[in-house]
Amino acid sequence: MSAYDELMAYQRETAALAEVAGRLSWDQETMMPRGAADQRGEEMAAMETVLHARRTDARVADWLDRAEARNAVAAANLRHIRRDYDRGVKVPARLSAELARLTSLAHRVWAEARADDNFAAFAPTLKTIVALKREEGAALADGGDVYDALLNDYEPGATASELATMFGALRPRLVALREAVLGKPQPKALNGHFDEQKQMQLSRMLAKTFGYDMSRGRVDKAVHPFSSGSGDDVRITTRTNGLDPFNCFYSTIHEVGHAAYEQGIDPAYRLTPLGRGVSMGVHESQSRIYENQLGRSRPFCGWLFGQMKDAFGDFGIGSEHAFYAVVNRVHDGYIRTEADEVQYNLHVLLRFDLERQIISGALEVEDLEEAWNTRFEADFGFAVDKASDGVLQDVHWSGGLFGYFPTYTLGNVYAGCLMKALRTAIPELDAQLAEGDLSGATGWLKARVQRHGGLYEPRAVIEKACGFAPSEAPLLDYLEAKFGALYGL
Amino acid sequence: MSAYDELMAYQRETAALAEVAGRLSWDQETMMPRGAADQRGEEMAAMETVLHARRTDARVADWLDRAEARNAVAAANLRHIRRDYDRGVKVPARLSAELARLTSLAHRVWAEARADDNFAAFAPTLKTIVALKREEGAALADGGDVYDALLNDYEPGATASELATMFGALRPRLVALREAVLGKPQPKALNGHFDEQKQMQLSRMLAKTFGYDMSRGRVDKAVHPFSSGSGDDVRITTRTNGLDPFNCFYSTIHEVGHAAYEQGIDPAYRLTPLGRGVSMGVHESQSRIYENQLGRSRPFCGWLFGQMKDAFGDFGIGSEHAFYAVVNRVHDGYIRTEADEVQYNLHVLLRFDLERQIISGALEVEDLEEAWNTRFEADFGFAVDKASDGVLQDVHWSGGLFGYFPTYTLGNVYAGCLMKALRTAIPELDAQLAEGDLSGATGWLKARVQRHGGLYEPRAVIEKACGFAPSEAPLLDYLEAKFGALYGL
Repeated sequence: MSAYDELMAYQRETAALAEVAGRLSWDQETMMPRGAADQRGEEMAAMETVLHARRTDARVADWLDRAEARNAVAAANLRHIRRDYDRGVKVPARLSAELARLTSLAHRVWAEARADDNFAAFAPTLKTIVALKREEGAALADGGDVYDALLNDYEPGATASELATMFGALRPRLVALREAVLGKPQPKALNGHFDEQKQMQLSRMLAKTFGYDMSRGRVDKAVHPFSSGSGDDVRITTRTNGLDPFNCFYSTIHEVGHAAYEQGIDPAYRLTPLGRGVSMGVHESQSRIYENQLGRSRPFCGWLFGQMKDAFGDFGIGSEHAFYAVVNRVHDGYIRTEADEVQYNLHVLLRFDLERQIISGALEVEDLEEAWNTRFEADFGFAVDKASDGVLQDVHWSGGLFGYFPTYTLGNVYAGCLMKALRTAIPELDAQLAEGDLSGATGWLKARVQRHGGLYEPRAVIEKACGFAPSEAPLLDYLEAKFGALYGL
Repeated sequence: MSAYDELMAYQRETAALAEVAGRLSWDQETMMPRGAADQRGEEMAAMETVLHARRTDARVADWLDRAEARNAVAAANLRHIRRDYDRGVKVPARLSAELARLTSLAHRVWAEARADDNFAAFAPTLKTIVALKREEGAALADGGDVYDALLNDYEPGATASELATMFGALRPRLVALREAVLGKPQPKALNGHFDEQKQMQLSRMLAKTFGYDMSRGRVDKAVHPFSSGSGDDVRITTRTNGLDPFNCFYSTIHEVGHAAYEQGIDPAYRLTPLGRGVSMGVHESQSRIYENQLGRSRPFCGWLFGQMKDAFGDFGIGSEHAFYAVVNRVHDGYIRTEADEVQYNLHVLLRFDLERQIISGALEVEDLEEAWNTRFEADFGFAVDKASDGVLQDVHWSGGLFGYFPTYTLGNVYAGCLMKALRTAIPELDAQLAEGDLSGATGWLKARVQRHGGLYEPRAVIEKACGFAPSEAPLLDYLEAKFGALYGL
């Protein structure tokens, strides 16, 4: 065997073990008995130790030295493995295991603090997580920017300053759009109770409609919707709320976007470095275009209106257009995951700015809740009522995911670019969506983005798919056109 | 750190990884998407490779050489680790990984063959499994008996010839009892349909009644009921059948016996070699005493009758005694897991004899179905109607579990011994059972058997708990007394 082949065989086993660790996380969120949390912490830490040891094994360095790339796929594989190895050797195994153990335990602490609306109960744990993440970031940064080093775990090649520039261009036009929209009369909100079992049934139907392969996945309920796994075992979760079926449906469609990306990757790449989505930003571009540009479009809403009437009978909305307005209702709210397209990115910018300060040390964890509440009121014009509606609403920080939030907005920006290109590629798109036929759109995304997996660098995937350099302009144009029309601006 | 402490820290991580692999098996039987089977095979094989490498790591031999046992617990830990290491180094990693991969894939092949009643569709896969198991057994046996080497994976210290002697003593009295009972008029069978959701509800209630800690476990449905995991994450599965609620209830109580054993082990032993049940025979003694000697006793049946009337209303049985007779009805049947106490062990003896022949080569896999059917008709007096009622009914062989079946009957023998001792220890046992109060019985079992985990050798655990050397006599006495009274022999 050549050095490359030996390396890839080794890598394949490592990828299989990483899948196992991912399945364990899924289990923790969906199936694990409450009393098993401590033991699970040890199990996760043991897996992390094994994975870390494999990724930093001296043989990998040796194989990398000797391996030759015979083609573009091999070159991409080596690029990923080299990057992982370089990152792996910088972080001590002890720190890596400690983070795995702590974030596993922290999940329960966060969930209880959230249930009690008590940030103080979570703060000491978060403080320890932040200290470890700073240590990790410093080890990775090698004298460079600590936050960038963490960000690059989710978005290789991105920098906070570059994102801050992009977000700076987004912000004024989003603020102006938000103010204009909220100055107009609002469509009425949805009223009534929607059976949660029927929500789950319709949810599974929507998942299939958007191309989710149920024979290689499953849908369960969890507190925080997520997608997990790659290749032939990609599972999603969603949640239900009797008063708000859209929360369930659009969480599902969003997670199907993530899952379809993983399921859509060229099967030849399975359990190789190319067999996973290339970055969180590109991942989010898929979940967002499924959820928003496609799922909340006028023609698709017309089709969904019919499906909901079939499932729930008359629910007090008289026309497709009224339904479309309700689905896209811009409304005050505390929760990022329930935010409309106009305001969603403002939630992300808040978190991006706060977590950069937390990591740099400009903001202490003890002061985080107050900083959150102050910033929230400044951005949204009303006060946070309780911690579960504020600083405790998201699971991310309890899992040590600093640097993750900005990829949401980057994904929205990429989704804006892809939608522009998709409309050019499929002029009859709206007619397809009006029939509930997503195959044209999801087929194009699979062919242009998803199937490549990790073959290209994140930004290059989007640029190749679109045929133009990605920027925030298409997203802003789309939002202003859509909500301008809806609200008669 | 001393060599012993270093060894134990390493061992603890290995135990955590073994728990992860166990959770993966649970997932495969309960949650895994159908299309994920191939990938799961690679995941299981990767875990097996990691575990095998850790168990046979040269450092373990070195630590074992240098470690000193300061007390009985340390001595028992070293005994387990040394045995595992010795077994581990005898089996090549390649064979170990191949078996893990193959048995993972074989599960699907077996399930499909069983659904189609087509043994021929499973035979080629089974033949490969047998070849690998023979290779494994020969590597382990070091010139000794190949079947014994496999048996010792499940029952350390046991030998097939010793079991054959014990089974030889059981057989004539069981055959005589069976013939006497089946010569008498039978109580009527249960009639009607029993809502499967209510069965699951009652099932969960029974689990709690028998002391299963739901905060450290969960109950799901699977094709084949099983218990999985140790310490704080011990999960069970059961199954439902609309016409036969006893299948569900007694499967649950049986698995709770296994799970309570794992949950009842001294928490100080968690993730150490003493933190798991010591053998399959001792495990089965717990599941069987929960299910039969306690769960199918006259006083407990009286209590359960009341619970079933509450759950299902009148179901056509007029008295506690009639209910007790139905629960303990001796009936012709194909399926081991549905067999009554009188005939159950005859099902096991059949498998024990056939699998010894398969492993020795006296019987070819191609001839297994015919051998099964011939033997079944000789023992039970009627012909097997289809493969799913015969040679394909059990999951074990598809998982490579040769040497596992005899531990079922050994467990019944041990349960007979424990019940004799329990009746002496708690004279008021029947009065407790009549109230649905299992705490006395399960508390005694926890204190005398379960809490010790792997501290003593299997046979010694039973002998210490009972205060006498285990033999088949108490089981036979119990069965003859119980069924003699029920059937007026």
